Amino acid sequence: MKIAMIGGGMVGQTLGAGLIAKGHQVTIGIRNPVASELAKPRNYAEPLADWQARTGARVATFREAATGADIVFNVTSGLVSLEALRAAGAENLADKPLVDVSNPLDFSNGMPPFLPAALTEHTSVGEEIQKAFPKALVVKAFNTVSAPVMVEPSLIPGGPDLMIAGNSAEAKAQVTALARDFGWQSVIDLGDIAGARGTEHMMPIWLRLFVQGGSPLVALKVVRG
Amino acid sequence: MKIAMIGGGMVGQTLGAGLIAKGHQVTIGIRNPVASELAKPRNYAEPLADWQARTGARVATFREAATGADIVFNVTSGLVSLEALRAAGAENLADKPLVDVSNPLDFSNGMPPFLPAALTEHTSVGEEIQKAFPKALVVKAFNTVSAPVMVEPSLIPGGPDLMIAGNSAEAKAQVTALARDFGWQSVIDLGDIAGARGTEHMMPIWLRLFVQGGSPLVALKVVRG
Repeated sequence: MKIAMIGGGMVGQTLGAGLIAKGHQVTIGIRNPVASELAKPRNYAEPLADWQARTGARVATFREAATGADIVFNVTSGLVSLEALRAAGAENLADKPLVDVSNPLDFSNGMPPFLPAALTEHTSVGEEIQKAFPKALVVKAFNTVSAPVMVEPSLIPGGPDLMIAGNSAEAKAQVTALARDFGWQSVIDLGDIAGARGTEHMMPIWLRLFVQGGSPLVALKVVRG
Repeated sequence: MKIAMIGGGMVGQTLGAGLIAKGHQVTIGIRNPVASELAKPRNYAEPLADWQARTGARVATFREAATGADIVFNVTSGLVSLEALRAAGAENLADKPLVDVSNPLDFSNGMPPFLPAALTEHTSVGEEIQKAFPKALVVKAFNTVSAPVMVEPSLIPGGPDLMIAGNSAEAKAQVTALARDFGWQSVIDLGDIAGARGTEHMMPIWLRLFVQGGSPLVALKVVRG
């Protein structure tokens, strides 16, 4: 499938490379894909020029990446997701799965990041994206684990759960199929896109467990009586 | 030990009865412990008069319950915890474990409840209690599972984790001992009281999983790579 990554950071690069390894055609979209931008070091990720040389994939504008894609992944920070997706173009997001991997983490006050009320108190990034792009089939997924675990869930032997939420059963089935291809065995459907509120709010405990344990290979698994 | 429950709802009644069964002397404190109040039906819990008849325990004012207690449990709604604890008296909370089981759930907009920004965006109820009562040894604990699971964790065979946070290692050890007496096998120490931000933020996903699965016997368990 043709897959667009809206965002070129650690998550976009890792998910992108993982999808390429599964035979998909991936384009990473960034704001300004000029050579100087591609050469820049990125937080916890390689310069996009290196990623591109390694994967052979295309890096383009947000809009170019989304145009003609079968599935679009939002892998930007939740604080800027709406702006990046507007740049991708509403018409390029319509009638296809829009996998929202973002979290609304604000690092402007230092560590730990906080969840800004405007994006969390009565809503979530997933819901705001669905409101802003009503024709997109938004599926919240993958945002509760670190990037390496997204594409290789067996890194956590206990077997984390992939938690997904969205209004379109068909889009959720497509995302579930991609996840199962990465080895996800347990997929928990939280229902409509309002379920994104649950998974986005998991960031504070996840970050705390990450810092306490000294490893991002940590996840929360659902256990039932 | 002499244990005070600040709050007479489902959590206070269940934890209280569980502690009585382990040989502790429990007093439930409520705002106004008059006969008409004790006879009132309570959300998801029995009238306190019935609880009292069943357990033989005392129901008193917030202040009377906390006075002379070895350990105090805050089992009020996070929205009113500071007010209830002020009524209990700062001097009655000093130099002893104050186990904060509360969550800042606001039901005023209907279901699902939201987490008000004032208690969550840059803080947590646990942190606010510690700030307001600097001599209390606040330990956030038990707030990530439903009341029956608090006192009988084996109700969830997968084995949930008890997540605790607090500034006093000694107070956390005391709370851990009480938890182990209930059968908790896995206790995860999240560090200082700021860890409360993590566990309080788990409410939206917990509530979603509760509603989706139709049972409050659900919890999140930490898995690591």
